[in-house]
Amino acid sequence: MKLVYKLWLDQNGKAFGDGPYELLKRVEKTHSLHQAALQMSMSYSKAWRLIRTLEKRLGFALLERRIGGVSGGGSKVTPDANQLMKQYSRFRKETEKTLIKLFLKHFRGR
Amino acid sequence: MKLVYKLWLDQNGKAFGDGPYELLKRVEKTHSLHQAALQMSMSYSKAWRLIRTLEKRLGFALLERRIGGVSGGGSKVTPDANQLMKQYSRFRKETEKTLIKLFLKHFRGR
Repeated sequence: MKLVYKLWLDQNGKAFGDGPYELLKRVEKTHSLHQAALQMSMSYSKAWRLIRTLEKRLGFALLERRIGGVSGGGSKVTPDANQLMKQYSRFRKETEKTLIKLFLKHFRGR
Repeated sequence: MKLVYKLWLDQNGKAFGDGPYELLKRVEKTHSLHQAALQMSMSYSKAWRLIRTLEKRLGFALLERRIGGVSGGGSKVTPDANQLMKQYSRFRKETEKTLIKLFLKHFRGR
């Protein structure tokens, strides 16, 4: 037997979770929402709508867009998003560890 | 902002969770899967299929059926099911408390 769980932050709907965290992590690395979406087998338009929806629910911007220029533009994670990602990452690591511990405590041997 | 989560025990698919726990609790009180299903606005056939599926995945019976007799039969939770329910209930209380604590620790003020 194993434990399965899903969790997310809610503010008038899903406002942040593992999927958005992973998407933003990839934007951080690639400086591109296009690339990040591609790596997650998500269409660019879906990724873009997701970001817009989360921003509305969270009440702050997650991405800064740099349009054009020599580099051809790109996306950058905002400081607010970066802070949320750090908090979320710490929270997720601790919840994962804790839930495994509680599962083993209560269901060891099952 | 608030935390939302779902969790369940898995063994070749969903094997136990809040819904089954509540259904069995109601069988315990009413001695009837019919009544238990009714109270949860679930059709009897759906409740019956659910119990069968869980039993297959868990590898033990959850309900004893008493057919006919003066009382008109009824359902009784097995000792195995009773033990699982107790474990699950303790596990759920502790996970709920712990997840709220972790959420407040990491996201207080958000």
